Amino acid sequence: MSRWILASASPRRKELLRQMGLIFEVIPAREEEKSASQNPEAYVTELARHKAEEVFGRVLPDGKPVIVIGSDTIVVLGERILGKPGDREEAFEMIQSLQGRSHQVMTAVALCWTDEEGKTHRDSFCSITEVSVNAMSEEEIRNYLATGEADDKAGAYGIQGTFGMYVAGIRGSYHGVVGLPTAALYQRLKENSLWP
Amino acid sequence: MSRWILASASPRRKELLRQMGLIFEVIPAREEEKSASQNPEAYVTELARHKAEEVFGRVLPDGKPVIVIGSDTIVVLGERILGKPGDREEAFEMIQSLQGRSHQVMTAVALCWTDEEGKTHRDSFCSITEVSVNAMSEEEIRNYLATGEADDKAGAYGIQGTFGMYVAGIRGSYHGVVGLPTAALYQRLKENSLWP
Repeated sequence: MSRWILASASPRRKELLRQMGLIFEVIPAREEEKSASQNPEAYVTELARHKAEEVFGRVLPDGKPVIVIGSDTIVVLGERILGKPGDREEAFEMIQSLQGRSHQVMTAVALCWTDEEGKTHRDSFCSITEVSVNAMSEEEIRNYLATGEADDKAGAYGIQGTFGMYVAGIRGSYHGVVGLPTAALYQRLKENSLWP
Repeated sequence: MSRWILASASPRRKELLRQMGLIFEVIPAREEEKSASQNPEAYVTELARHKAEEVFGRVLPDGKPVIVIGSDTIVVLGERILGKPGDREEAFEMIQSLQGRSHQVMTAVALCWTDEEGKTHRDSFCSITEVSVNAMSEEEIRNYLATGEADDKAGAYGIQGTFGMYVAGIRGSYHGVVGLPTAALYQRLKENSLWP
């Protein structure tokens, strides 16, 4: 029996992983790493890897078999990468730029684990979903921001909350947009013979 | 101020409508109506209309301005329309037929309302979303059915629960698959000057 660890403090990721039926601990990575990659997919995958590696390095000395799941999400609009907004004003500007058009949400997942012989392994992947947002008036944006739901989320919105009423449609994984692409993760865990 | 009524007993629809910020009562339609339509879109729209009309007819004598929202959801696989499964065996057969391929989820919404002069109005629309389900083994299907989540849902699954880990992706409205396409409903309410 391996020890399962989610290397993320996000309550959405925790809930999605729990919904998959896994029993796990939450050990958030200590600092948000930066990435030098210009390519969004490489960028977010590197962030997810940093998170997983940092926690993996901390628990590895225990010597018990372990599986660490790191994950990070970014919103990509054309050439721009949107992370979490620094303040309400930046949040307003982000939603202003997202309304009335489509963008991509990229969630990367990085896995680090030890096998029965204590050998270490790594795997990672990135889920990309297209999200179409209806046109929003300034008043609608301000009303949404007043809910406080935007503050801690990449691109300044959470699709699972009030913002859902502005999302015309998506193409790809809904869970990927929420923060953890469970169907792809489940397939990857099975392929690596990690599913319990 | 109009009285808002949701003509559906579905807890998912209630939660989605609440999330939009509306204050409303729930008055479920008394019986599941049948439709003679062969076309799936016409079929589900007729069911939603029946629900809204039945409740509208009941509350209209009160004389107060009222807005009634009826809704129904079906799963469409090729030529087949899948409603709620009658028992566990039928649920197994439904998921067996859905796994490893794509299907459509159609949710129709019907609105009946009175204006300030007491005149009655109707409107309706249908949201169609494509859902791709990963291949599932018989064991995975049985494990899913054991959660009990399939029993009261069209097509024998609820995308918002455990089944999400088998959904590779969707194309269209996630809320439409859950049971109420909030973004389209919000647009329609604004177009009819019904949004409070």
